[in-house]
Amino acid sequence: MKIGILGTGSVGRTLSARLAELGHDVVIGTRDVAATEAREEEPFPAPLAIAAEAAAGAELIINATAGQVSVAALDGAGAANLAGKVVIDVSNPLDFSEGFPPFLAVCNTDSVGERVQRAFPEARVVKTLNTVTAEVMTHPERVAGGDHTMFLSGDDAAAKSTVTDLLREFGWRDIVDLGDITTARGTEMMLPLWVRLMGALGTTEFNYKLMR
Amino acid sequence: MKIGILGTGSVGRTLSARLAELGHDVVIGTRDVAATEAREEEPFPAPLAIAAEAAAGAELIINATAGQVSVAALDGAGAANLAGKVVIDVSNPLDFSEGFPPFLAVCNTDSVGERVQRAFPEARVVKTLNTVTAEVMTHPERVAGGDHTMFLSGDDAAAKSTVTDLLREFGWRDIVDLGDITTARGTEMMLPLWVRLMGALGTTEFNYKLMR
Repeated sequence: MKIGILGTGSVGRTLSARLAELGHDVVIGTRDVAATEAREEEPFPAPLAIAAEAAAGAELIINATAGQVSVAALDGAGAANLAGKVVIDVSNPLDFSEGFPPFLAVCNTDSVGERVQRAFPEARVVKTLNTVTAEVMTHPERVAGGDHTMFLSGDDAAAKSTVTDLLREFGWRDIVDLGDITTARGTEMMLPLWVRLMGALGTTEFNYKLMR
Repeated sequence: MKIGILGTGSVGRTLSARLAELGHDVVIGTRDVAATEAREEEPFPAPLAIAAEAAAGAELIINATAGQVSVAALDGAGAANLAGKVVIDVSNPLDFSEGFPPFLAVCNTDSVGERVQRAFPEARVVKTLNTVTAEVMTHPERVAGGDHTMFLSGDDAAAKSTVTDLLREFGWRDIVDLGDITTARGTEMMLPLWVRLMGALGTTEFNYKLMR
């Protein structure tokens, strides 16, 4: 599949590398290709393009930017380039501006997932993967052999089916559909526990298995 | 142990019945004993007393009131009656005033656990059990034979040790100490996911197992 990834941080890099390894045609979108290349010493695992070009050429787009700037970043990619496409939102609005622990810049009665869906009503937004670190997103077998749970939220059933297939390619086996995009509040609000568990356990490689 | 339970709803009832069954000396505290008895058809599983009396006679107190009114309810029990004692806070500030899904009346940069600790600095507050339904709090074996995780938060290590022993009496085996009382933000913020999972799964009897 032709996949455009917005975000050049560690999440964007890790997703790009894994998707390329799985045989997908990946382009990483950024605001300024030359500036991104000049800033980063390590080569990127997929070609860079300006965000609008990365989105225009893609069948599926992944938002791997910080939650606070996601709507602006997707706006830079262009609403027309998102229309009708599956947009996977893996972002979290963690705000470290007042130190540790971070707070959420949006939560409780709204979420980044909902903001993205409202801002781009023709995009088919699916929130998922935001509850684990990038290495676990792409290699769930790194924790307990993959015996744990991934949630997803979204308004479009066909989009959720496409994303479920992609999650299975990564190795996810227990995938729980929470319902419409407003359920993204629940998974984004798991992050305050996540950051404290990271401290208590001394690792970022953990997740929850839903027992029922 | 002499245990005072504040809260006459289903959580208070379920905890009282289980603790009495385990041999503890339980008193249920309420604002007005006659009014509570007049309102409720089913007999209570332990004797009722006014909140101050229930707290004064107890070695350990459980706050099973709604999160929004917990500080007021504990104030009714009397700060002097809480001083030096372990106070287990199992409450959640779920606000259904605008319908479903509920939002949290406090979250993100504060929590009910912290509010209770700040309001009663001499109490030894431990937040726990708020992430599961009352039947699972008291009988964890109802879900996956008890193979799942309970978190706790608090500033007082000895209080957390006392609470850990009580959790083991209920049947909890995997108990994770998240750290100080500010980590209660994380477990209270799991509730928006919990209410949506209840809908997706069609049951209240589920929990998470922390995989690491």
